[in-house]
Amino acid sequence: MSDRNATDATRKRLLDHGVALMLQNGYHGTGLADVLSAAKVPKGSFYYYFPSKEEFGAQAIEHYIAPFIQRLSEHLSAPGKGGLDALSDYFRESTRELEANDFAGGCLLGNLMGEIGDSSAPARDALKKAVDRYRDLLAKGLARAQAEGAVRQDRDAPALADLLVNGWQGAMLRMKVERSAAPLRAFVDDMLLGYCRA
Amino acid sequence: MSDRNATDATRKRLLDHGVALMLQNGYHGTGLADVLSAAKVPKGSFYYYFPSKEEFGAQAIEHYIAPFIQRLSEHLSAPGKGGLDALSDYFRESTRELEANDFAGGCLLGNLMGEIGDSSAPARDALKKAVDRYRDLLAKGLARAQAEGAVRQDRDAPALADLLVNGWQGAMLRMKVERSAAPLRAFVDDMLLGYCRA
Repeated sequence: MSDRNATDATRKRLLDHGVALMLQNGYHGTGLADVLSAAKVPKGSFYYYFPSKEEFGAQAIEHYIAPFIQRLSEHLSAPGKGGLDALSDYFRESTRELEANDFAGGCLLGNLMGEIGDSSAPARDALKKAVDRYRDLLAKGLARAQAEGAVRQDRDAPALADLLVNGWQGAMLRMKVERSAAPLRAFVDDMLLGYCRA
Repeated sequence: MSDRNATDATRKRLLDHGVALMLQNGYHGTGLADVLSAAKVPKGSFYYYFPSKEEFGAQAIEHYIAPFIQRLSEHLSAPGKGGLDALSDYFRESTRELEANDFAGGCLLGNLMGEIGDSSAPARDALKKAVDRYRDLLAKGLARAQAEGAVRQDRDAPALADLLVNGWQGAMLRMKVERSAAPLRAFVDDMLLGYCRA
């Protein structure tokens, strides 16, 4: 492995462990020493990989959202599946996964929007960018579902997507203290298949 | 002032400053030394007032929600005002306040549900209790609005109240990174006056 590849692999490992630790303990509750130790990277070498904890947090946010964007894209490009079905399949799959994980962690975006969304500029920019990517993809699915006649057409797709993003985030917060999938299921039934459905 | 009153006043001052600091920096980002210093209470005397930081956090949550419960109760008991109008007045007043405060902080309940809702048992219990009180009061207003014919009757009031709690929490997270009241206004228009309205 070249030095460059080794550096990239270590950086990715630090981000993987950083995401897991921040999901559990939040941003301020996650020390760089804990991340290095979990990733088995020598103490003191953090700044070789990232310029600051804030920049690490920003990159962790981007790293975290990528697989969710990927999964949602896959549902939306499944052949023969309507837009609304693709969206409900995506949210139901996420619900089952959160349930299997005993509702631990929830969503790093929501947790960090609450904890540092207005106090760290790099985090805020990264959170806004990640939420926008996610919202735009939901809007794409909703627009298709509108064209298919499955979703109401009196509201534009980005506005409906914003409501879904925010409702889902709120449902995940509630899930954490209730230790229950009920808020997630209510979101799918009442917001996606209730409010949005044509 | 008796010793007992002085102790109560100091405890309240510590909770006031604790709430303000936790709104800004989260739970893990708020050190007890910062709270003592902000409240001008001698260093090292924290454990005279609270048994632990976790218990302080739990009491801060209760302390934080009390004025919101009070305000919502006042709107709901305003003479001659319908239940749905009382609820929309409450959320609009909260929106104006968050706007005037430049969207800083958001809601301590939402922020802490995300940060420590599943990692600290005392915080989780306090959050659940605070959210339940708030949800029950919203449900009371919604039930009255249903009896008045202003809110849909095909869903029970507690279920609608849960949706409102979660949608509002999600909207406040989004507000923080967008630095905009648009998510709060969309919540009132689309959820309360859209989905819930008869």
